[in-house]
Amino acid sequence: MEQPIRYELIKKDKKTGARRGRIHTPHGIIETPVFMPVGTQATVKAMTPIELKDEVKAKIILSNTYHLYLRPGDELVAEAGGLHKFMNWDGAILTDSGGFQVFSLGDLRKITEEGVAFRSHLDGSKHFISPEKSMSIQNNLGSDIMMAFDECVEYPADYEYTRKSMERTTRWAERCKAAHKNPDRQGLFGIVQGGMYKDLREISAKQLVALDFPGYAVGGLSVGEPAELMYDVLGHTTPFLPEDKPRYLMGVGTPDYLIEAVIRGIDMCDCVLPTRIARNGTALTSKGKLVVRNATYAKDWTPLDDECDCYACKNFTRAYIRHLIKCDEILGARLLSIHNLRFLVRLMENVRVAIEEDRLLEFREEFYKKYYHQ
Amino acid sequence: MEQPIRYELIKKDKKTGARRGRIHTPHGIIETPVFMPVGTQATVKAMTPIELKDEVKAKIILSNTYHLYLRPGDELVAEAGGLHKFMNWDGAILTDSGGFQVFSLGDLRKITEEGVAFRSHLDGSKHFISPEKSMSIQNNLGSDIMMAFDECVEYPADYEYTRKSMERTTRWAERCKAAHKNPDRQGLFGIVQGGMYKDLREISAKQLVALDFPGYAVGGLSVGEPAELMYDVLGHTTPFLPEDKPRYLMGVGTPDYLIEAVIRGIDMCDCVLPTRIARNGTALTSKGKLVVRNATYAKDWTPLDDECDCYACKNFTRAYIRHLIKCDEILGARLLSIHNLRFLVRLMENVRVAIEEDRLLEFREEFYKKYYHQ
Repeated sequence: MEQPIRYELIKKDKKTGARRGRIHTPHGIIETPVFMPVGTQATVKAMTPIELKDEVKAKIILSNTYHLYLRPGDELVAEAGGLHKFMNWDGAILTDSGGFQVFSLGDLRKITEEGVAFRSHLDGSKHFISPEKSMSIQNNLGSDIMMAFDECVEYPADYEYTRKSMERTTRWAERCKAAHKNPDRQGLFGIVQGGMYKDLREISAKQLVALDFPGYAVGGLSVGEPAELMYDVLGHTTPFLPEDKPRYLMGVGTPDYLIEAVIRGIDMCDCVLPTRIARNGTALTSKGKLVVRNATYAKDWTPLDDECDCYACKNFTRAYIRHLIKCDEILGARLLSIHNLRFLVRLMENVRVAIEEDRLLEFREEFYKKYYHQ
Repeated sequence: MEQPIRYELIKKDKKTGARRGRIHTPHGIIETPVFMPVGTQATVKAMTPIELKDEVKAKIILSNTYHLYLRPGDELVAEAGGLHKFMNWDGAILTDSGGFQVFSLGDLRKITEEGVAFRSHLDGSKHFISPEKSMSIQNNLGSDIMMAFDECVEYPADYEYTRKSMERTTRWAERCKAAHKNPDRQGLFGIVQGGMYKDLREISAKQLVALDFPGYAVGGLSVGEPAELMYDVLGHTTPFLPEDKPRYLMGVGTPDYLIEAVIRGIDMCDCVLPTRIARNGTALTSKGKLVVRNATYAKDWTPLDDECDCYACKNFTRAYIRHLIKCDEILGARLLSIHNLRFLVRLMENVRVAIEEDRLLEFREEFYKKYYHQ
């Protein structure tokens, strides 16, 4: 059986080992490293599929198993012909396992070996997601890349809890692999856990690699720990992952995290940050964060970012976008969403070129200099 | 001096006298009858200018003097190079006079011969708009078509109040004409008032026609009166307006009102209805209103309207749009806004063809038959 997900390593940055690659999926080829916009409820907030393709230039998006299971329901999505058809997106889709959202419910959920019992954040109704259930939902959604059902432990968490949780995540990964019904059409990724403990990260990685998934994620990072600790743990984890499989760092989306992750061998990242801060009136720019809502931009007739090629920057001024945001106009959220997504997608395009030219460290220095006004 | 706004009568429907025409403006030619989308705060809600042009196929939009005066301020818009440049819309723009919004404030405003004192709905700050001030604001905005400052009387209103108000509206129209600073670049329309009293409508029309405006609006209709009364008063008013000037019925936007207005000699209409009901999850379709939020559409894999050529109908199902609306996703409001605006713009396109073919009454019958499931 041919794997639906294949990774092709094109070259490595000579100084850092950062990877320039390509992921082959049933819905197109993804150049990596790549940033994936998040479409939680079968829509990247405020965006049409055509804008994602033509303006943002995204080739892969992420969607959320937990949200789609609750609403509109994965069986309805299956009846629609799968998530691609339901939302009219012909690029690639990665679905998470539902684990992260369910564990984020706090008091509303209870974990056992079998799975997680929880109450819906929408109506309080009772539900149970097991590894098998997560696979069934993701099979119904028909994503190109599925994630194994895992537990993302909080930060900080003690060693014993983290070890037991990590071992359960491995057992759940085995159950996911066994329950996955469409291995010919959908690739299933394992998720490395182990909290901030390097020995647990190593064990987790080795156990999952033994299960031979077509790709691996690093979970449980960027959960509140200091950046330096995250970089340290990440840098210790990726060397245990195989060179010929893609590596995905979950939930990471600030420009510095993206660059540092790539330097540590990561190929894929996702985050709600660009669209979330867009709706609050903040832009990511080559010269740092810009709170366009501020009065200082009331008569600023320049674009959000004069280095950007997006629809918002080519057509509108900061003054106009500020006016829209102040008036709670949907177009304000739209323009900032397009811009912020394009900013991160383009950042990764530039990172790819820097790797090709063996100058990723120089790129990082130049980028930080402008971004942090150093 | 050449008039910036010229009307060209192409032909009249043989049975009704409905007018097929063309309005020449500094920002393009408008085929009439026409529906004008409303962009209250320098944006047609949820839409980009390029969507208005390419998807809705709008050539003229309306914007609101009262709102733009308060936020971001007409002087800021003038500094931006005018409203067209500020919002990046190169089609035509009509601005209202601010009168209707100010009078809608109820207890927050006080009318004198000089003008209207009012408090802002945003922060309670005190303001005064006179005919001269309205002209100054609209000159700053730089719209192609400006409206004279008028009083829109409530329904019902007694004869004496309506008469006095109508006479003041005529005096204000004279003052507007005198205060208008850019008659070479912006066309100023007079507004016929007179409530539901036919003799007052006739006097108002004749007084304004004597002032020789490049176009005329019929105001003070669709303010709560029964449809039959509105049709009756409108049908009595338009014959007093000159054949060689465009006629605009203000604030009218349901499909039946549009058709009936055209039959009574109207060339231009506007309304917030299509975008407002869109955000509440309602579509206008050739088979009537469709509350897509309803459970009955949960698994409806057909488009909103199978006769529609808009982006929403060509790419998405009712089931998907329902999901978006249920989840309060911006894309839901966007798709329904595109569709509803396109529906009314296309309705007027079809009305134009019907006039050209002398079959407007037959068109009306066929349209109502489907729309009201008769």
